[in-house]
Amino acid sequence: MFMSELPAAPVNRIIKNAGAQRVSEDATAVLAKALEEQGEELARKAIAFAKHAGRKTVKAEDIEMAIKQ
Amino acid sequence: MFMSELPAAPVNRIIKNAGAQRVSEDATAVLAKALEEQGEELARKAIAFAKHAGRKTVKAEDIEMAIKQ
Repeated sequence: MFMSELPAAPVNRIIKNAGAQRVSEDATAVLAKALEEQGEELARKAIAFAKHAGRKTVKAEDIEMAIKQ
Repeated sequence: MFMSELPAAPVNRIIKNAGAQRVSEDATAVLAKALEEQGEELARKAIAFAKHAGRKTVKAEDIEMAIKQ
């Protein structure tokens, strides 16, 4: 099984908060994987923007620029 | 500050795993918020697909269909 960095409990809460009555374990795992992959992609872009700006520290503005791309 | 369901530590690890040397706290918070919002949107779609299929339980196939939309 995919070992997500994102723990199941908060991802399950996101689905419950959205109005789900019941959620299968697999559904939570699939969403956790999707969000982690999205996070990795945004992080890679943000790291490139930080380097482009001559920084070793990824700042909020780098993540924000990655989200806008 | 935005109270994310997603805890900071795993979101920070996603950015570090992507190759970041240093990550500001704000950067982690912005990414956590973005991923949570994306999760909420996917969850809302998945819940609609589950209802459409006559189920009260959100299954993996509902999340997968939401991701494909």
